[in-house]
Formats: sequence, C-alpha cells, structure tokens
Amino acid sequence: MKNLEAKFAKMGVDNAPGQEINQAAAVLPLRGETLPGRKVDFSHGDVDAFLPTPGALEAFVEGFNEGGRQAYTEYSGRSDIRALLAERLSRFTDTKVGADNVILTPGTQGVLFLDMGDTIGEGTKVAIIEPDYFANRKLVYFLGGELFPVRMDYFASDEEAGLDLSALEAALEQGVKVILYSNPNNPTGAIYSAREVKGIADLSKKYGATVIADQLYSRQIFDNHPYTHFCAVTETPENCITIIGPSKTESLSGFRLGVGFGGREIVKRMEKLQAIVTLRCSGYNQAVFRTWFNEPEGFMDDRVAGHKAIRDELISIFRSVEGLEVRSGEGGSYLFPKLPKLAVDMPTFVKILREQANVIVTPGTEFGPQFTDSFRINFSQDPQAAADAVRRIAELIERYRYE
Amino acid sequence: MKNLEAKFAKMGVDNAPGQEINQAAAVLPLRGETLPGRKVDFSHGDVDAFLPTPGALEAFVEGFNEGGRQAYTEYSGRSDIRALLAERLSRFTDTKVGADNVILTPGTQGVLFLDMGDTIGEGTKVAIIEPDYFANRKLVYFLGGELFPVRMDYFASDEEAGLDLSALEAALEQGVKVILYSNPNNPTGAIYSAREVKGIADLSKKYGATVIADQLYSRQIFDNHPYTHFCAVTETPENCITIIGPSKTESLSGFRLGVGFGGREIVKRMEKLQAIVTLRCSGYNQAVFRTWFNEPEGFMDDRVAGHKAIRDELISIFRSVEGLEVRSGEGGSYLFPKLPKLAVDMPTFVKILREQANVIVTPGTEFGPQFTDSFRINFSQDPQAAADAVRRIAELIERYRYE
Repeated sequence: MKNLEAKFAKMGVDNAPGQEINQAAAVLPLRGETLPGRKVDFSHGDVDAFLPTPGALEAFVEGFNEGGRQAYTEYSGRSDIRALLAERLSRFTDTKVGADNVILTPGTQGVLFLDMGDTIGEGTKVAIIEPDYFANRKLVYFLGGELFPVRMDYFASDEEAGLDLSALEAALEQGVKVILYSNPNNPTGAIYSAREVKGIADLSKKYGATVIADQLYSRQIFDNHPYTHFCAVTETPENCITIIGPSKTESLSGFRLGVGFGGREIVKRMEKLQAIVTLRCSGYNQAVFRTWFNEPEGFMDDRVAGHKAIRDELISIFRSVEGLEVRSGEGGSYLFPKLPKLAVDMPTFVKILREQANVIVTPGTEFGPQFTDSFRINFSQDPQAAADAVRRIAELIERYRYE
Repeated sequence: MKNLEAKFAKMGVDNAPGQEINQAAAVLPLRGETLPGRKVDFSHGDVDAFLPTPGALEAFVEGFNEGGRQAYTEYSGRSDIRALLAERLSRFTDTKVGADNVILTPGTQGVLFLDMGDTIGEGTKVAIIEPDYFANRKLVYFLGGELFPVRMDYFASDEEAGLDLSALEAALEQGVKVILYSNPNNPTGAIYSAREVKGIADLSKKYGATVIADQLYSRQIFDNHPYTHFCAVTETPENCITIIGPSKTESLSGFRLGVGFGGREIVKRMEKLQAIVTLRCSGYNQAVFRTWFNEPEGFMDDRVAGHKAIRDELISIFRSVEGLEVRSGEGGSYLFPKLPKLAVDMPTFVKILREQANVIVTPGTEFGPQFTDSFRINFSQDPQAAADAVRRIAELIERYRYE
C-alpha cells in the first residue's frame, strides 16, 4: 500500500482548474486595495458566454425519449452513432475512420485515461511534452509508468510549436514506448508544424512507440493556420489514438462527451477498460453526438472568430506589461503568459489574483514543474469581462513587481 | 508491456451484459424449431418497462438551463447536491453522512473503479465473494491486486446470504487488505443477515481491512426482509465506502449516476483519481440527483411491489423445471438459476437461448469460474414478456436436457 500512498501524494488536485474551492484560506502579503470587477474564472471556458451548440439539449431529450435503446449501449458507444461520427471524422481528418475504430467516452478525460491505461503499465516509459495538459503526468504516476519530459520551446517561433525532436529521439532511444502530445498545445495554443508532426510520426514508427494525439482543440484554429492531423501522416496508424470531443469550442462540457479513434486493437482494449471504469459514456448523452460536426452553417466560423477577437484583445493587454512574454497561440482557447519577476511566488500571486482581482487562473506548475513564473488562462469568456479581468491582472503585476 | 497484455487477456467483455452484439456467429447444435416470442434482454433492466423515476428529465433540463454553474462542478460533484444527498443518505442508513463524505461519479461502476483504484495496488490482496458482480475480478486484475475468493453458499438458507466467515478470516490471515461484497448480492438476490454484516465488520476491524459495500440494490428489498447497512454497524467507518446509485430500481441508468460515501480520506483519494479518469460525473446529469430519495409518495413502494410480483411468477416457472435450483432472492432484480445437466455446455446454451428463444441471459462464469451451470437474469422487465421468455427457457432446458 506504501506504493499507493506515494502515487496519490503526487496526484494533488487542489491547484487543478475548478478545484480552488478546496484550498485553505491563507494570510496573504497584500498590497493596496481590491480592484473591483466582475469575477472571471479563467480556469475553464464559460459556457454562459459561449453557449452550447444549438440543438444539443433537444438531441438529449430525443435520446431520453427513445428509452432503453439509448440508455443501454455497447460499452464503446451506440454503433449507429459511432458510424455517424466515423464518417464525419474521416472527412475532418481526410483519413479512413471506421465505426470500429471509434470509442465514445465520458469526456475527453475519459479517452485519455482509457488509452493511457491501455498502453502504460508498471515501468512503461512515456514521453510527455513540457508544457502540456496537467493530467498527463498524474496519469503516468497512477499507472506506474516512467516520465520522460521533452521540452517545447514555445517562444522560439510562431511557425512551429518548438518541439525538440532530437530530445524526443533521445527519449525513444532510452526505451520510451508511448508519446503523448496535445495539438493545439494546452496551455500555450501553439500548433505543431507539418514537419514536427511528421517528425513525431517517423520517430514513433522507427522505435515502435504508440502515439496519443490530443486534438481536443483542433476545430478552433485561427487565421487558417496550417494544421496537421497525426493520423493523416503516420505510417503506423494502428499504433495511434486521436483524442477529440465537443467539450471546448462547442461548449458541450456539461454533457461529458469524448471520442477516441485510431488503431482497432487499441480501441478494443480501451473498451475492455471502459467496461470496468464507467461502463459507457452516459447513454442519453451519447445522443448529443448527433449534433456534432453538424452545426448550423457558419456557426463554427463565427465561434472561432469570436475567440480570435478575444485572444487579440487579451494579447495586446498582456503585451503592454513590461517584461511579460506571451505567445499569441494559433489555436485553442488558452494563453500561457510568462510573468516578469514578482515580489511574491506564483502560488501566492495566484491567490492574490483571486483575492484582489476576483480572477481565477491556473498556476504554470500544473503544466510542468519548471513553469514557476507562468499561469494559464482559458479565454473562452465574456469578451468585456475577460479584457477587464486581464487589465486587473496587469495592474496587480505592476503592484507586486520585484524592484 | 507483457504484463499489460496478460491483464487485458483476463478482462474479456464479449460475454458481459449488453455486449452480445460483438460475439462471432457460431454453428450451433440446434434441436427443433425456434420458439416464437417477443425478445427479452435479461442482461439488464428494461427502462421501457419500468420508466425512469418522475421528474428526472425535468431536473436535467433545469440543470442545463442553469448553465455554467451546473456544467462545471468540483470533481467530487456539486457541493449543494452532495449536501442534499448526505442528508438523505444519513436518514436512509441511520448514520451521520456529511457532504465531504460523498462523491458523485459517472454511474456506480465509476465509484467501484475509484475506490478500488484507490485501495488496490500491485500485490494488494483482495477478498471477493463468489458469486458476485462480474467486474470485481476484472478490476482486481487491472489494478494488479491478488484475488482471494470467498465462497457464499446461497442455497443453504433464505435467512442468510451463506457467507463463509471462517474462510473470510482465513483470507484476512493471509494478508487480505480489501473486502468487497454486494448486498443484496448480485447475481443471486441474497441478503446478508445482521450476523453476517457484523461478522464482516468485526473481521475488517481486527485485520485493518478496508470494506467496499456495494449496496446498489438496497432500496429494493422484498417482504420487509431485514437489511443491515455496513456503515451502520462498522466500528471503523473511516475504512469503508458504500456504493449506491439510482441506476437500478429508479431506472436512471441512462444518466450514469453513482454515489460513493464513507471515510473522508478514502473519498479525498477517490476525488484525485476521478480528476484523471473522467474529471467528474457529467455536470448537467448531476442535477438529476435532486430527484433521488425524493420520489412521489408511494412510488418506490409500488415499484418494489411490481418487481416482487415478477420475481414470484418467474420463480414459480423456474421451479417447475425438474432438477433446477434457484434462490428466490430477498432483494434486487436478479435470479441466478442453477440448471440441471444439459447436453450442451453453458456458453452454447446461452447462444441457443438467443437463437431459439429470442432471450439474452448472462453466463454464470461472469460471476465466478465455477458457475458453469448457472446464468443470471435481470427481471426488471415487462412482466408478461418476462414470464413468456422464462417459459421458453424452461422448454429449451427440456429440449437440451442430458439424457
């Protein structure tokens, strides 16, 4: 059981997005007065600002009214819905996806757990990118795998994510069997270039590694930035799983809908695991998938444009702060500013932001231990409220700036 | 990875309830003609026969309309809903449950995975009952634990489940640290006596073991049979988790709602694990919990009475078959008949039932390797269709009886 204790000690959730309510009150070294303004919780998107895609609730109600057929589906998800999604995902990625290559899960966290649980055992070596999604490392801990972090220099260029492919190859030489990356990257919004994606594909083939490509934000790309689907360039598609779902740009997070698609053998194992983890994605909720990739004409374009406008505004406010660096991000809803030196450490500053600016952000260390001077914001928010909140953040950076 | 292959090999799902669609067609040694009749899928309850409890859909829609507050909850579930349930579960079990002792999960399978994942690591010794819920063993395999099956002689008496407490103690002497049992038992419907539940409690205290009490069917007890909540008799409540939820008697399975409650430290760890497995029970779905333990006056009594009537009818048909043994079951919706010797093995007979009787049952070996002559049925079905289906089963038992 000692082993278990150690695992759980590494799996803290109190700093995770949405968990701030659990943190103990601390005495903060406050300077000056509270800045008035509407609360903004940047830890996740605001589904009251960007409403769920049209027809979602109606599809749920139809599913409920259909009764038992929709309540009890196969563990991998109702087959006609999988077939529908397979067709749409084939078009989206320009590859051939079959219904049997698809599994529906309770949210994309569910896909991530299933395909990691499926490929990572005691001692499995896993390459993750830093920075990347906070749960990746915790999952590797829980499953008993060994972490091989690979650096991404996200300030180097806007044309590439900044992945160090030679560091990735060095990790593979040491026996890494699983590579996990998000594209657009969470938390920076960086998009991997075709060269980088192809590089990951070639290396994974050379070393026989499985690739988990988290493409949750791949429908939210700005300025027609080129985007490369991993499944479209890999020569070993049987060794890859793509993660996607309607929780983000589509604002359907409250339904917990996720999709994994890829190699048939991996999907079969994911189904076995799902059978003992949650049985299935909630039956009635699965019906909502019928509306996905089938939004009203122009809806998604408008939504992406709305996010781009917010991004541009927030970037310009952040960049007015001397010494602050931020990548604008070519896709997704995140910004990951690196702050100038402050008189307080980041955990304290994050609490101060909550106390004095009525703003919740996620500390950078959730995305890699070295990101002690960064935080993440999800800018899928009311535009005005978000801009005001970032102005308050900027003001507090000045107030707490290290002299 | 070899280790992983072995694990997944033991985690087959093709015979699991609801998965029959995946089985390859086989050439069956058929005798005689197909028996006409409406299809009955006894692998799970029919939510078209026993409809979801009133108000469930309306509560979901209200949750959806509430927006972000209901979409994004803490990982353990929205706190006011947990507080509401804590109060109702306190009344139900006659113990003191606090909101922080409660976690909401995607279905009771979710609770089971989280509390097993939380307490079982590589080499942890786990006592399970045979027969018991089919996923228990698979979970222990996946988590790397070691199984210590303890026999339950469910034909011995209707006053007790038939648990062999001395065998349980022998397992604890060998280092078992987790005990898992369902009450009413799945698949037999047996209810543990106060003496048996107290026996488990005393032994778990003596040996410092954690107890997971799966009480999913504890609201469906027939004839006022005495029922003992484990949490109400244990002297070490911090080492126990009770599993419950509205998926069965309440027919809310299509929402995937589960609840675990018990020791605060265990619940905290379950929350950490949920954070990387599925994040949370679907936000909007959580709103449906408001209707639970708050059904219209008399509704649950009628529902239980409806199930009892079906049970009585099916038991009398089964008992008309010579050499067939079946416990009537004091609670829950399952029957687990032990068949007389047949000319075909059980996997084949199960397929024959599908082919010639239009009936789906779950093979006994899902509940323990020795149950090669039994199958399970969930009798939460249309009463007439269920009785007709069991008559067809009885006819086929005669047709395939070993001479």
